Amino acid sequence: MSDRVAREAPVPWVDAEEATGIGFDRLVFFSDAVFAIAMTLLVIDVRLPELAGRVGDADLAAALSELWPRIFAYALSFTVIGLYWLAHWRRYMLVRRADDRLALLNLVLLGLVAFIPFPTSILGEYGVLPVAVAFYAIVLGLAGLAGTAGWLYAASHHQLRPTVTSIDIRAGVVRGLVVPVVFFGSLLALPLVGPAGTELLWLLAFPALWVVESSIRRADRSRRATDDQATI
Amino acid sequence: MSDRVAREAPVPWVDAEEATGIGFDRLVFFSDAVFAIAMTLLVIDVRLPELAGRVGDADLAAALSELWPRIFAYALSFTVIGLYWLAHWRRYMLVRRADDRLALLNLVLLGLVAFIPFPTSILGEYGVLPVAVAFYAIVLGLAGLAGTAGWLYAASHHQLRPTVTSIDIRAGVVRGLVVPVVFFGSLLALPLVGPAGTELLWLLAFPALWVVESSIRRADRSRRATDDQATI
Amino acid sequence: MSDRVAREAPVPWVDAEEATGIGFDRLVFFSDAVFAIAMTLLVIDVRLPELAGRVGDADLAAALSELWPRIFAYALSFTVIGLYWLAHWRRYMLVRRADDRLALLNLVLLGLVAFIPFPTSILGEYGVLPVAVAFYAIVLGLAGLAGTAGWLYAASHHQLRPTVTSIDIRAGVVRGLVVPVVFFGSLLALPLVGPAGTELLWLLAFPALWVVESSIRRADRSRRATDDQATI
Amino acid sequence: MSDRVAREAPVPWVDAEEATGIGFDRLVFFSDAVFAIAMTLLVIDVRLPELAGRVGDADLAAALSELWPRIFAYALSFTVIGLYWLAHWRRYMLVRRADDRLALLNLVLLGLVAFIPFPTSILGEYGVLPVAVAFYAIVLGLAGLAGTAGWLYAASHHQLRPTVTSIDIRAGVVRGLVVPVVFFGSLLALPLVGPAGTELLWLLAFPALWVVESSIRRADRSRRATDDQATI
Repeated sequence: MSDRVAREAPVPWVDAEEATGIGFDRLVFFSDAVFAIAMTLLVIDVRLPELAGRVGDADLAAALSELWPRIFAYALSFTVIGLYWLAHWRRYMLVRRADDRLALLNLVLLGLVAFIPFPTSILGEYGVLPVAVAFYAIVLGLAGLAGTAGWLYAASHHQLRPTVTSIDIRAGVVRGLVVPVVFFGSLLALPLVGPAGTELLWLLAFPALWVVESSIRRADRSRRATDDQATI
Repeated sequence: MSDRVAREAPVPWVDAEEATGIGFDRLVFFSDAVFAIAMTLLVIDVRLPELAGRVGDADLAAALSELWPRIFAYALSFTVIGLYWLAHWRRYMLVRRADDRLALLNLVLLGLVAFIPFPTSILGEYGVLPVAVAFYAIVLGLAGLAGTAGWLYAASHHQLRPTVTSIDIRAGVVRGLVVPVVFFGSLLALPLVGPAGTELLWLLAFPALWVVESSIRRADRSRRATDDQATI
Repeated sequence: MSDRVAREAPVPWVDAEEATGIGFDRLVFFSDAVFAIAMTLLVIDVRLPELAGRVGDADLAAALSELWPRIFAYALSFTVIGLYWLAHWRRYMLVRRADDRLALLNLVLLGLVAFIPFPTSILGEYGVLPVAVAFYAIVLGLAGLAGTAGWLYAASHHQLRPTVTSIDIRAGVVRGLVVPVVFFGSLLALPLVGPAGTELLWLLAFPALWVVESSIRRADRSRRATDDQATI
Repeated sequence: MSDRVAREAPVPWVDAEEATGIGFDRLVFFSDAVFAIAMTLLVIDVRLPELAGRVGDADLAAALSELWPRIFAYALSFTVIGLYWLAHWRRYMLVRRADDRLALLNLVLLGLVAFIPFPTSILGEYGVLPVAVAFYAIVLGLAGLAGTAGWLYAASHHQLRPTVTSIDIRAGVVRGLVVPVVFFGSLLALPLVGPAGTELLWLLAFPALWVVESSIRRADRSRRATDDQATI
């Protein structure tokens, strides 16, 4: 923080209409709070139905086992929002200042993230219906796109740290599109593979992310090795 | 932060009864948390009614499409609280210290913001009734006024950074009044245009804010150009 | 923060088993989050009952006006938790480090604060019954005592900043006891004045706090004036 | 913070793919938010059933006294999550940087912590059934293990501060295993002592933690005394 403040100190707040130092910190901590609350509110929809009559051990075990679709929805949404938070976290480490429009774009992202408990609840209850699956895929895909839009805005308005290269920017876009591509792509497969098949398809996002991540790092390393040779 | 601490360090905590450094940071991060939670709790009221009998795809689609008033209420409240947070964010970048009374005024603002999920829930369910629309407009308008009151208090008690001019202060007031003026003004139009018309009127707050924002910046730029000439 | 880190840097983390710097910041920001969430969750209990049949404007207005006990409970609890947060905020500006036991005492305080939405909900629904009033007074009084206990612990274990005098410590205790004294004292009055009278009594806490605050400051100022004379 | 930034500044963000400074702060504050929200949401399940007919003082008192299982579940879960937070707090004071995998492991911990309100709700309602008790013990035990897994990962990937010794690392593991060992161990006792007996067994975690804590400190002190002698 002091490093950020020090770097930006000559730019006075009012003139620049841009946030550095504490203003920048508030933006990211506020975002963290929204992500954290959205993730934690998901559990509210994991609850038993009213069990009628005298409830015994077998009844409770049966009721719990019927909750698996909701627990799956909880785990899936928690993981996807968690990955979106990780992407936000990594991106904003490379952002050095924020203007009003980046803050607004960030609000759009947060509005979509804070909305995710709703499609999650529907997926948990009606996961066997195509409408529930499509609605979930659309909202989660849009949230992923909004995050990437913020990154592109920051990149094209000189709001990234000077050490960030155009290759880093492109890598950030590619990383950011993996999950939305899986969600929107799954909509095409929905008529063919049905709701359950589509939900399985979504799980492909995790290995896909891992493959993209690894190949970005590999490319990065070989590029840097070449740079070092060129320097010699 | 370190820049703030450094600037204020000679003022000892106890004597000044005023918060700088970590005390100031806590005030804003605490406020951020309340804003973020209020915004994220809004989604709790976006939920399907219990669907009776065997629910098919068409039933779910129908139930979802009937939820638009609640989704509209969610999006509207999220955006307005988001704008209030943006205003808070911009204002407190210019505040350099806080005393107990500013903290209390801030609590009044937070109490109104944290209350917004209630009128939002009523608007989502009874948006066709004038009472629901009026109640919503009043609570959201009051929250906007409370934010501006805090700004005026800080300005009139020498709690702003020395670089803030009286023109900046006035601009902060004008900006802060746009949304409350639209909400309270819409109450006058309510008997004429009805609930739906009033809700449409509220959307005017967004372009109005944009116009005010742009003209403040334009004035700022031309003023500064004149200053530069005068200096030469 | 940097000022805190700088001051404490020579004390290594592991040996001291005490938190300064980021550890201390986490403790207060974590506390802020619990306070903020408890305050914002209060609104969940301000909700309309299911209105049966075709709901008109008059029905909604009537239902809203019947909610005043719940809105009063919301406002009261929000204000009291807000004041407890303010007390926490002011106290921890004077704390310079924290050990495990202070963190545990702080957890007890947070556990009581996070519990407040429950007695608030009961007060909002059954505020005409003495049991509801007594339960509310006890929980809120205990939360106030827990805050003061943490302050006394920090004071008696050399965890306050060196500039804090024994007079400041006593003033912190007196301030901290005003609200609990009003709540526990109101229990004695409950059989005489009834639930509604007791709820009115609670409102005395606010002017009482103001009187105590003013007299502490006056004493502080006159004491300091005397000190200055003595120095001359 | 500035101390952290200063220490790590030569390592550029992009190359290291690791978070220090603000990135590290976000990771811990984000975790704090999830812990705080999970703890505060627990109160949502402490609520009275709908009381039918004219409710008198005796009815309310009876309804409140029947809530003790839920209040016990609230207090237990609040305390255990609080202890897990304390462990997280103490561990991350010793972590000096974080990579993606540590962030992911931390997400697994947070996903389990955020899930705790669900088994708590079941324990509060069906605490007399073995299935409820076993489910609670498993989820809370897993959350404890996930925290310790993160600690081991950080230790084995050179992400701890250089002053942390292998003895400190082992002590962190031992501390972290006390609560999970009690929870998983209690599953073995469940058939013998029944649900109520198992819940009592859990309370053993608190003195056990205290004993482990004290003996670690004692060992630490005697070891250090020996070191000092050796130095002389």
